[in-house]
Amino acid sequence: METVDSTRAFVKNVKRLIVKVGTAVVTRADGRLALGRLGALCEQLQELNSQGYEVILVTSGAVGVGRQRLRYRKLLNSSFLDLQKPQTELDGKACAAVGQNGLMALYDSLFSQLDVTSAQLLVTDNDFRDPDFRRQLNDTVNSLLSLKVIPIFNENDAISTRRAPYEDSSGIFWDNDSLAALLALELKADLLVLLSDVEGLYSGPPRDPDSKLIYTYIKETHERVITFGDKSRVGRGGMTAKVKAAMYAAYAGIPVVITSGFATDNIIKVLHGERIGTLFHCDANKWASIGETDAREMAVAARECSRRLQALSSQERSKILQDIADALEANEKAILAENEADVVAAQQAGYEKSLISRLALNPGKISSLANSVRVLSNMDEPLGRTLKRTEIADGFILDKSSSPLGVVLIIFESRPDALVQIASLAVRSGNGLMLKGGKEAKRSNAILHKVITSAIPVSVGERLIGLVTSREEIPELLKLDDVIDLVIPRGSNKLVSQIKASTKIPVLGHADGICHVYVDKSADMDMAKRITVDAKTDYPAACNAMETLLVHKDLAQNGGLNDLIVELQTKGVSLYGGPKASSLLMIPEARTFRHEYSSLACTVEVVEDVYAAIDHIHQHGSAHTDSIITEDQEVAEVFLHQVDSAAVFHNASTRFSDGFRFGLGAEVGISTGRIHARGPVGVEGLLTTKWLARGSGQIVDGDKSIVYSHKDLTQQG
Amino acid sequence: METVDSTRAFVKNVKRLIVKVGTAVVTRADGRLALGRLGALCEQLQELNSQGYEVILVTSGAVGVGRQRLRYRKLLNSSFLDLQKPQTELDGKACAAVGQNGLMALYDSLFSQLDVTSAQLLVTDNDFRDPDFRRQLNDTVNSLLSLKVIPIFNENDAISTRRAPYEDSSGIFWDNDSLAALLALELKADLLVLLSDVEGLYSGPPRDPDSKLIYTYIKETHERVITFGDKSRVGRGGMTAKVKAAMYAAYAGIPVVITSGFATDNIIKVLHGERIGTLFHCDANKWASIGETDAREMAVAARECSRRLQALSSQERSKILQDIADALEANEKAILAENEADVVAAQQAGYEKSLISRLALNPGKISSLANSVRVLSNMDEPLGRTLKRTEIADGFILDKSSSPLGVVLIIFESRPDALVQIASLAVRSGNGLMLKGGKEAKRSNAILHKVITSAIPVSVGERLIGLVTSREEIPELLKLDDVIDLVIPRGSNKLVSQIKASTKIPVLGHADGICHVYVDKSADMDMAKRITVDAKTDYPAACNAMETLLVHKDLAQNGGLNDLIVELQTKGVSLYGGPKASSLLMIPEARTFRHEYSSLACTVEVVEDVYAAIDHIHQHGSAHTDSIITEDQEVAEVFLHQVDSAAVFHNASTRFSDGFRFGLGAEVGISTGRIHARGPVGVEGLLTTKWLARGSGQIVDGDKSIVYSHKDLTQQG
Repeated sequence: METVDSTRAFVKNVKRLIVKVGTAVVTRADGRLALGRLGALCEQLQELNSQGYEVILVTSGAVGVGRQRLRYRKLLNSSFLDLQKPQTELDGKACAAVGQNGLMALYDSLFSQLDVTSAQLLVTDNDFRDPDFRRQLNDTVNSLLSLKVIPIFNENDAISTRRAPYEDSSGIFWDNDSLAALLALELKADLLVLLSDVEGLYSGPPRDPDSKLIYTYIKETHERVITFGDKSRVGRGGMTAKVKAAMYAAYAGIPVVITSGFATDNIIKVLHGERIGTLFHCDANKWASIGETDAREMAVAARECSRRLQALSSQERSKILQDIADALEANEKAILAENEADVVAAQQAGYEKSLISRLALNPGKISSLANSVRVLSNMDEPLGRTLKRTEIADGFILDKSSSPLGVVLIIFESRPDALVQIASLAVRSGNGLMLKGGKEAKRSNAILHKVITSAIPVSVGERLIGLVTSREEIPELLKLDDVIDLVIPRGSNKLVSQIKASTKIPVLGHADGICHVYVDKSADMDMAKRITVDAKTDYPAACNAMETLLVHKDLAQNGGLNDLIVELQTKGVSLYGGPKASSLLMIPEARTFRHEYSSLACTVEVVEDVYAAIDHIHQHGSAHTDSIITEDQEVAEVFLHQVDSAAVFHNASTRFSDGFRFGLGAEVGISTGRIHARGPVGVEGLLTTKWLARGSGQIVDGDKSIVYSHKDLTQQG
Repeated sequence: METVDSTRAFVKNVKRLIVKVGTAVVTRADGRLALGRLGALCEQLQELNSQGYEVILVTSGAVGVGRQRLRYRKLLNSSFLDLQKPQTELDGKACAAVGQNGLMALYDSLFSQLDVTSAQLLVTDNDFRDPDFRRQLNDTVNSLLSLKVIPIFNENDAISTRRAPYEDSSGIFWDNDSLAALLALELKADLLVLLSDVEGLYSGPPRDPDSKLIYTYIKETHERVITFGDKSRVGRGGMTAKVKAAMYAAYAGIPVVITSGFATDNIIKVLHGERIGTLFHCDANKWASIGETDAREMAVAARECSRRLQALSSQERSKILQDIADALEANEKAILAENEADVVAAQQAGYEKSLISRLALNPGKISSLANSVRVLSNMDEPLGRTLKRTEIADGFILDKSSSPLGVVLIIFESRPDALVQIASLAVRSGNGLMLKGGKEAKRSNAILHKVITSAIPVSVGERLIGLVTSREEIPELLKLDDVIDLVIPRGSNKLVSQIKASTKIPVLGHADGICHVYVDKSADMDMAKRITVDAKTDYPAACNAMETLLVHKDLAQNGGLNDLIVELQTKGVSLYGGPKASSLLMIPEARTFRHEYSSLACTVEVVEDVYAAIDHIHQHGSAHTDSIITEDQEVAEVFLHQVDSAAVFHNASTRFSDGFRFGLGAEVGISTGRIHARGPVGVEGLLTTKWLARGSGQIVDGDKSIVYSHKDLTQQG
């Protein structure tokens, strides 16, 4: 995705950045340099450098490299006798002196390959006590950067007078993390990137599957919750040191991102505004976005509330809906005021008229919404219906009973009235709900959500219905396949396809609506004209609009096809032909049959007969809705039974494929999937079943002691 | 996964390997060296070197590097006037001479960092015409390898007398791909790895989403089908050259893998026997595995056949089942002979007795299977049932009708009789089928599949039921979410979990079966004993066996708990306690409540009351089957309605949760999912619905001209 995450908007203003790379990234487990990661780091810095960024590198790793080299040297220098003696630990400063050489030589040769010049700057804590040094450092670095040289900083461990370099956390800086933060301030960087061996800061130990990556650190929320991971394998920093350094720089106004240095392009991704790693930003606590770990918590709470809702009586659930209806009417003024604010904002933002008209709650809309909620409150109880009753054995009755799905996530677009309908349906059907509305309707959704949840009794809990306010939360929600049972996207095909591609949760929806009308040779041609015009023009952008008109070949001979074409063209429909129709009718050829115009345009093709029409539909259709126009009952039945689509019609417009027109009451969506629900889906889309058996002590015991009767006792009607 | 893919078994014998890295891997789009990839390459070669592999590198890239350097040099040397003149192309040999330097310097410094010594060997085609050279080359390389030095080969482009180095494909070798293949033969390598900029060889252009990666190249199958990709951006090789070189080495007995050099660990993965890249092996055409691209083709064929099967009448579908039953009986001898061969093989392989008993088709089994197929043939027609009928408007009737799902993939374990049952159910319900059986029953499955499909009429097509024979095909099948509608794994929990985790196709199954029995204070204690013993001991490994016994606290006081415990212990059940029960009963503490013993063991815990039992079940259960034992009807109803599991029982053993015992006829599986089907699932698990509307010219027309009646006309019974 191209768009910059809203929490990462600061990247637009980044010119100077500091990248700090830790020992755990620079070296491998065996102490040798991690060449692949270093190479990829240099490639990224070169790319940024060539794009005009001012890049400063702070690197660790010299001590580790030096220790590795000195061990090897010591071995070569040792006599057999030497090796019998207990081995003393190598001096840290000696290691640093040797390692610094090797590390810088490698950076030099890597950057040279990329035509980049790098420079070495070794500093100690003491240096920073001198104000002249600080001034001069700025001048030196500015000169280097103006020449497009990449300065590489490291603590000058070999000459540092720090007593215990691995434990001492005093001084102006005390490790490369704090050096990087200090330099960020001194050199007025716009961004500090700390590369780590994990993806960022987690809510618990990174290896624990329950730990979640924190995308935006908010001190108030995360400080107490988080158990930091252990220190790095080799470096002295670890996550605690990184967070401390990050907080220091962030509070001084410099955004910091902790991300993995194991990937080959994370710095580039950070600068593209992608939501990776953990961001520290001085304004983060003011941002409205909910915390990421809260998405799961919201869904779990919704499930718990839904179980309490299910435990209520049917009357109690009805009562909640009545209370919601009353609350909507009682808060009409406040709701309309917020909605008006959304509408004004949308107008100022220059949104399309059609969007604004969907957004606006017209006068009278609140009371009509309240009334529709009251209709739902009087709806036949959908829960606990006995769909099947079987006597398993004498005194042992099995019921298959309707029950709620659990927690449903609904992603809907601008209409705020959809929130009311969906929330009421969820209450009626005993489900928990996670709602994500369009950002244009933000204020309307917020107040409607507040009004509705305030009418939910404490015994159930207002967290039954969660409102997700930030688009960034969607990917988090889509990961929760263990707590969310179904996702229903109500929006563009693109939205549905994207969601289907990015979740393991079942999705109820339709990505494509390539609907066909087939006009048979025996069709009543007046009816054919009326239906094709309706199917295409009643609402061309609808998923159930006709996209392809198939016509029996005989009608191409007797003028029937021509009449149809003229009728469509008169209504302003642009026509594109398949190979046969385009040459016959002299119309432009369609590029592909699998195309949804969603506008006043459609494809026409001539087919041999009903069987050819069926084959065409199977090959090019989307199994949504297809219709045949014919007076021949036998042909009609062939079409009805053989077309493998969610809805198949005879002598009727495809536009009838709709929950309201089907008489399903509230429409939950239209599904082109085959699992769970298919075609227009009413409240049953929010239900599943449950088996209840009432026995009198029956045991299986190898099926020896029971006589199965398996009598169907289902009450009809 | 740890296991070596069966097609990659040769890796066990690899000692000497040649890795060839092409220009597209070594250099970036801008002509500079790809440092990250080169670093990762060196790290991998060092790791293999240290593990005792003899590693030889063939590298490209010098010409590209040299061109980049010379362009820069030329620019520096040019006067302003020079730059006005048309620029001549740089000499290829000069580029090679300059670039070779830079490339080798980099390899040297990278390998040095890893304490590895490398050596440069520049060769020309001419050299190989000299037999002395060939002998001496072997000696030189062997000496280097014995010293653990990595030889790096490249064509000596700077002094090559080849006329058109980028077009000329004559000679003993003509590019680095053919050089690598030649060296593989000369130096008697055990494996050749060609690193490319794509994952391997595709069935079409790699960027086309319809192209599939070919895991094993089979000349007969793939030669004509494949459109090779374009040549690489920079190198002279391209995929055609790689395939040619790979075929040359493979036919000479050296396995070749073409894989991506963009990943950081593909060479290591190849040597671990993972199924990545494209393998060329001289015996590949003899391997029994179906081609990978065939998995999709099989599924598409099954869908097409299923549509023809649906178009048949109910009687015709019944007839097919009768023919299948007859065919089974007519081929009894052959089937039993193949089954006997499987049984003998399993015995020789030392399989467990229980597996062998599931595998064996006992005398009389074939006729009992044939009879069960005849029962299905007389089953009420499951297709085209009108589940709901609505009058939408006058003369406009809408039916919701049962219809087949489409194509179902069933993965089952050793029982060959399952194949017969599943295949018959598929035919009865109009579905296409993909079957994957256990390898122990390979011969039995093959003959049963042959006998069954031979009874399917040509008008439908025997590809209605596909038999997948190799385990490696499962990942391929699980990717086909556009042609397979449902996966039903019938095997261990582990199998089900693995499949759920690795596909976007809906899965019908249950991973966990953590079933509870709650004994209330008001229970009839004799009944409680009988039911808990049955629930645990009737078949302890079943998913519907009791894993946790919850007991009301009052029973801990009055001796009831003790009686239950003694009864279970008498039957040989090992008991583990929750925090309360373990101290009360002096039994070992269970590590977690979420544990499926699948053996004669169970967890016991004491709870406050029915509500605490329900909370416990929600928190620790798997929503499979839970039972309450109580004489208090009110408490029973609370439990039945509030426990959110697929099956909830009162005064009956959890073992009743089963398709046969529920009277569903054939059992398709037991689902702990909430979508599509829940609990024990019969033939309805293979069905979906379809909406059929029969009108008389109705159009929507903004809903102006139609009067909706929405009358329910559903016929009951």
